Amino acid sequence: MPEIDFWYSIGSTYSFLSIMRLPDLASESDVSVRWRPFNVRTVMTEQNNIPFAGKPAKSAYMWRDIERRAAKYGIHANLPAPYPISDLALANQVALLGMGAGWGELFTRNLYRIWFEDGVEAGSETALSEALHRTEQDPLPVLTRAREPEAVRALEEETRAAVAAGVFGAPSFVVNGELFWGDDRLEDALSWAKVGHVV
Amino acid sequence: MPEIDFWYSIGSTYSFLSIMRLPDLASESDVSVRWRPFNVRTVMTEQNNIPFAGKPAKSAYMWRDIERRAAKYGIHANLPAPYPISDLALANQVALLGMGAGWGELFTRNLYRIWFEDGVEAGSETALSEALHRTEQDPLPVLTRAREPEAVRALEEETRAAVAAGVFGAPSFVVNGELFWGDDRLEDALSWAKVGHVV
Repeated sequence: MPEIDFWYSIGSTYSFLSIMRLPDLASESDVSVRWRPFNVRTVMTEQNNIPFAGKPAKSAYMWRDIERRAAKYGIHANLPAPYPISDLALANQVALLGMGAGWGELFTRNLYRIWFEDGVEAGSETALSEALHRTEQDPLPVLTRAREPEAVRALEEETRAAVAAGVFGAPSFVVNGELFWGDDRLEDALSWAKVGHVV
Repeated sequence: MPEIDFWYSIGSTYSFLSIMRLPDLASESDVSVRWRPFNVRTVMTEQNNIPFAGKPAKSAYMWRDIERRAAKYGIHANLPAPYPISDLALANQVALLGMGAGWGELFTRNLYRIWFEDGVEAGSETALSEALHRTEQDPLPVLTRAREPEAVRALEEETRAAVAAGVFGAPSFVVNGELFWGDDRLEDALSWAKVGHVV
């Protein structure tokens, strides 16, 4: 089965659309998707890439665009959501732990719902604990582990792997070394995985 | 007939795709399109928005993405094209003059072909003169007029109108006050013009 690396970062607004769309799209396409949380903030800071801070026109557009696209895909959201999030690293360290333990995808979707539907900032203890509850994980031990040096290092390693794959923003999709950036390239990435070009 | 303002800037790479796709798409959709060249460099500088300078990973991706998308749409191109262009203001002052005289669209397409197919930088005298020739316009008087204060002011006014419409980058499409940014939102803009939402 063809495989896609789905590089996303909790804290990235457009990742919301991909996170909600991927399960159905991937199963329709018979493509296997590897969810890979990384620290997009580190990558963008290193690459001098500031997407929205200090850019009111572009920020206002981003929320409106996500609102229109969510409506198009039938995804529920109350926008704008709190942005930027506070502890981006911690949220993604939890997600990465979850990927190793089999609950990472569900945790990610639950956390984005808390952020984009309930309006609770995704890096906060409140949001992280509630998302873990909804994922049937005990928040206290998970958050403790997620703060340990091993979990910190694991996210840093994944972030370096993202950069090595050419990733400069989130969400990104990598298929056989071919990079696609943005939720609006998800269909192109699936097409690449299936037939080797963009249809 | 529904109407779209197509805000573009000679010098913008992704505008190439829209410039090549619009004639067919617009006539298929029964939508009337007003081509409005503006100075995207002024707008982005004012809004502290630096798309590609100093961002090698994002720049490399941009060319690869345009290449894949051009192939998808059956548009010929030799990439990467010289970037950034030198005299962005002059090129758009010529285009704006042409819009008033009825040859602006054809001039724009000819100039983009010279830039993206023949590899001649679009702000250069060579490219501008050749594009005017191919558009059956006499380069010398047109370039003289395009440098006069009236033409300079006209582009500045259009640029202010773009900002007033919420435009922060190129290409952008405005339909009944609704802004769409990027060639990948052209279909959404056409859909908005026809049915008032994104399908």
